[in-house]
Amino acid sequence: MEQAVERVLVECVPNFSEGRRPQVVRAIVEAIAGVSGVYLLDTESDEDHNRSVVTFAGPVEEVLEAAFRGVREAVRQIDLRHHQGGHPRIGAADVVPLVPIRGVTLRDLVPAAQRLGRRIAEELGVPVFLYGEAATSPRRRDLSFLRRGNFEGLQEAMDTDPERRPDFGPAAVHPSAGATVVGVRKPLIAYNVELATADLEVARAIARNVRESSGGLVNVRAMGVRLEKRGTTQVSMNLVDYEKTPIYRAFELVAAEARRHGVAIRSSEIVGLVPEDALLDCAEYYLQLGGTWSRRQILERRLNEVEGPR
Amino acid sequence: MEQAVERVLVECVPNFSEGRRPQVVRAIVEAIAGVSGVYLLDTESDEDHNRSVVTFAGPVEEVLEAAFRGVREAVRQIDLRHHQGGHPRIGAADVVPLVPIRGVTLRDLVPAAQRLGRRIAEELGVPVFLYGEAATSPRRRDLSFLRRGNFEGLQEAMDTDPERRPDFGPAAVHPSAGATVVGVRKPLIAYNVELATADLEVARAIARNVRESSGGLVNVRAMGVRLEKRGTTQVSMNLVDYEKTPIYRAFELVAAEARRHGVAIRSSEIVGLVPEDALLDCAEYYLQLGGTWSRRQILERRLNEVEGPR
Repeated sequence: MEQAVERVLVECVPNFSEGRRPQVVRAIVEAIAGVSGVYLLDTESDEDHNRSVVTFAGPVEEVLEAAFRGVREAVRQIDLRHHQGGHPRIGAADVVPLVPIRGVTLRDLVPAAQRLGRRIAEELGVPVFLYGEAATSPRRRDLSFLRRGNFEGLQEAMDTDPERRPDFGPAAVHPSAGATVVGVRKPLIAYNVELATADLEVARAIARNVRESSGGLVNVRAMGVRLEKRGTTQVSMNLVDYEKTPIYRAFELVAAEARRHGVAIRSSEIVGLVPEDALLDCAEYYLQLGGTWSRRQILERRLNEVEGPR
Repeated sequence: MEQAVERVLVECVPNFSEGRRPQVVRAIVEAIAGVSGVYLLDTESDEDHNRSVVTFAGPVEEVLEAAFRGVREAVRQIDLRHHQGGHPRIGAADVVPLVPIRGVTLRDLVPAAQRLGRRIAEELGVPVFLYGEAATSPRRRDLSFLRRGNFEGLQEAMDTDPERRPDFGPAAVHPSAGATVVGVRKPLIAYNVELATADLEVARAIARNVRESSGGLVNVRAMGVRLEKRGTTQVSMNLVDYEKTPIYRAFELVAAEARRHGVAIRSSEIVGLVPEDALLDCAEYYLQLGGTWSRRQILERRLNEVEGPR
């Protein structure tokens, strides 16, 4: 049996401010997937959010090239002056996170994020902010700080708050494409819990009590969102460190806060990709698995270990 | 990328009536693992049950050879006249199930089980019963029917009930090694739920209400067992078709029946191996995953798809 060679693998999960025109999303995805060596892993569009999330992976250089091409296509095709949707955004290519998957660390990817940000600014004329591990000040680590005021309020923020000045590019917001946030982060789980109520105030109240910024769980960002087509609402969350703050804890806290309002949970959903261990954590929690239990008892893992590469 | 070739893979999960003498278990495991081409996947010994479960896999012929050698070692080393434990058993090598994993069906394995049974009977002088898919009458599909009365009551059952006559071998129970049941079945999940009570009657009452044979869930076998060392009890279950009757349903019914007695669940455990999908079923159930969720969103599965064999 041949020894598996660990190839460096970086994931990139750009968010684009378009979830209603499939042909635009398709053009962006094709621009990304056209780079050889890049694996397209997932594309999800949300009409209510009017937003799409593309996930792809590959070696560092190929991922940077594909990310740039996707951003360029979004800048060409999306005009934020006509954009409506339930999700905060400042740009056509709103945020471009790089995520270490294999053979590379968070720190290793900071220079890569800087190069990508500089190129977007220089070639497309779009102001770029660095966030997460690549942030140039502590407050700028936080995406929601950089997005405060949305596209509509961005120019004023850039003009008046030194902490909101871009890291690269012009001092003026791009007229149609806004600005782009580029950064490095751990794997993030986009996790939404749908509530059996149309009352957005309930969803917002629950989100406030669940998220880190207002007294809830660390590593959880949350907001209330109206789901127009379903006539319901949801608590839309980002779990930014699922190893410390797992999915089930966020789910259970949302459920507890919802009970306070006499509201049931209709369903939950994961948007984009999720590490397998994050789901196994949930199975183990709810089944109270203990005793001699170990994940090495999972048949497929044992077979992988003993059979090696097929 | 090279196309993965599907190699036939059969799992064998023999249960031996020894869980307290590690050197005996080791000798049996070594006899099995000594066959080239066989992958040893798991060994679990339970002192309370006084029983060990060995899991291995490989191509058909290699698995049959390894199973025979394991049974032979058990017949040499285990004397049921001195055996005590909480689990029903009729033999030193109590039951030897063959399980199709890949590239083979339940039906395909029936002739293999017949050959193994005949060899055990002829070379070791141990009566053999066929069960599961290999059973020679409908009642004999059920392992608990063949084990009724245990080792101590087996000779009388063989003498008086034509349905209890062995398929192969002598009409007399082997004096020290009893008899062996050989068969073919689907993947089975051995799943135990530990109760916060030392009262065996409570565990037994819950087991009665949970199992198929007395009004509970189909595809579930259950019994109450005392855990001497922990000072508690457990509902010890076999889930014989987890795709139809999943782990979470068994767990929730045990919990509901336990509440009836004012008894809490301390933990649960899986003994031996479990298919990954059986755990993902639980995560999806408890999180109420819906919407656009699909298992193709699991990062590792997507990477396997796009990267191919490493």
